[in-house]
Amino acid sequence: MTIKPRLQLALDHTRLDAALQTVDRLHPYVDIIEAGTILCISAGIQAVSALRERCPQHTLVADLKVADAGATLAEQAFSQGANWMTVICAAPLATMASALEVAGRYRGEIQIELFGRWTLEDAKAWRDLGIKQAIYHRGRDAQASGQTWGQQDLDTMKALSDLGIELSVTGGIVPADLPLFKNIAVTAFIAGRALAEAADPVVAARQFRTAIDDIWRS
Amino acid sequence: MTIKPRLQLALDHTRLDAALQTVDRLHPYVDIIEAGTILCISAGIQAVSALRERCPQHTLVADLKVADAGATLAEQAFSQGANWMTVICAAPLATMASALEVAGRYRGEIQIELFGRWTLEDAKAWRDLGIKQAIYHRGRDAQASGQTWGQQDLDTMKALSDLGIELSVTGGIVPADLPLFKNIAVTAFIAGRALAEAADPVVAARQFRTAIDDIWRS
Repeated sequence: MTIKPRLQLALDHTRLDAALQTVDRLHPYVDIIEAGTILCISAGIQAVSALRERCPQHTLVADLKVADAGATLAEQAFSQGANWMTVICAAPLATMASALEVAGRYRGEIQIELFGRWTLEDAKAWRDLGIKQAIYHRGRDAQASGQTWGQQDLDTMKALSDLGIELSVTGGIVPADLPLFKNIAVTAFIAGRALAEAADPVVAARQFRTAIDDIWRS
Repeated sequence: MTIKPRLQLALDHTRLDAALQTVDRLHPYVDIIEAGTILCISAGIQAVSALRERCPQHTLVADLKVADAGATLAEQAFSQGANWMTVICAAPLATMASALEVAGRYRGEIQIELFGRWTLEDAKAWRDLGIKQAIYHRGRDAQASGQTWGQQDLDTMKALSDLGIELSVTGGIVPADLPLFKNIAVTAFIAGRALAEAADPVVAARQFRTAIDDIWRS
């Protein structure tokens, strides 16, 4: 019995109106909606409140990749309606702790975004702090330069999962990639341009859904 | 003959109008103005264009701490009038390269923000890519938890400086701290709350200025 991964729509538009158009079309087909870093920088934190207004029932993620000022940025994100907020792995533990404290007041969660150098010892420290989620990330620039999913990615994900950290996975994922992850407890697959920029976004969302249903039968 | 460090005002307000009030008052006393991460998240990238409009002559920094999507975020920052944009050290080299390429088109510069785990080998790779600046950072959460400037900080700064990386320094700096840095080629001291939240911000800015003039006599 494994938990079925959810489908997360990442909105990385540079215009809020374009992001809202995408979400209006796709929200019935996804479980989690993400105000991406590009959208939050372009439109500011109002992007989160605008998405919360459109989608009152969805889990909503503010992908701020917080590196410092954890309490202030968490207050911004959660007060605008986010359920989850991302903190970058390079942030000091003190930043994670202060973000987590604010998240707790809103019954929200912190997700550690994995980029660059970090160790399993770091991951244990995050877990000990009370953080339950991380995002395993193949960066879009890394993708563009040809970096692909490999056994090392999968082994690292397994090790994190064994530490009790729930993983979401992102980075140019398409439905054909999903079988790679069948032995990992994945919280959500995060897709941005693969959905928003598909020839038919609804068809693309359904393809993800079908692939998830096929691979994770209960 | 050493170059005199400049004074950088970091605006980390959660409201753009409050940031603009601070900059209206302090811009004659500082060399560099920074749209801080908190301000950019709160108000969006329009914070950068609003500051550029108020301060056409100042060097303007967009402190986005970019971790991914280097070209898109650099386009946002530089098209709104930033001269410099920060990228977090945890970002992939591909992200730094794409940010740098856009920066070059605007005659802008990229500053690597040092947080968490990184090595001097990483710093060499950044330098080889063409990056000339970094920000040595004592995080505000780390400060709040009591972490102070130590010999290890100074040794690391010296090593970066020896690699040809120009350093700006930030993290709860007050004028009394400045003598610590007298043997390091510092591009700018970055002060936020020490200026904006001082009993008299203009007096506080003048105290920084006097300390810099006293320590770095030409």
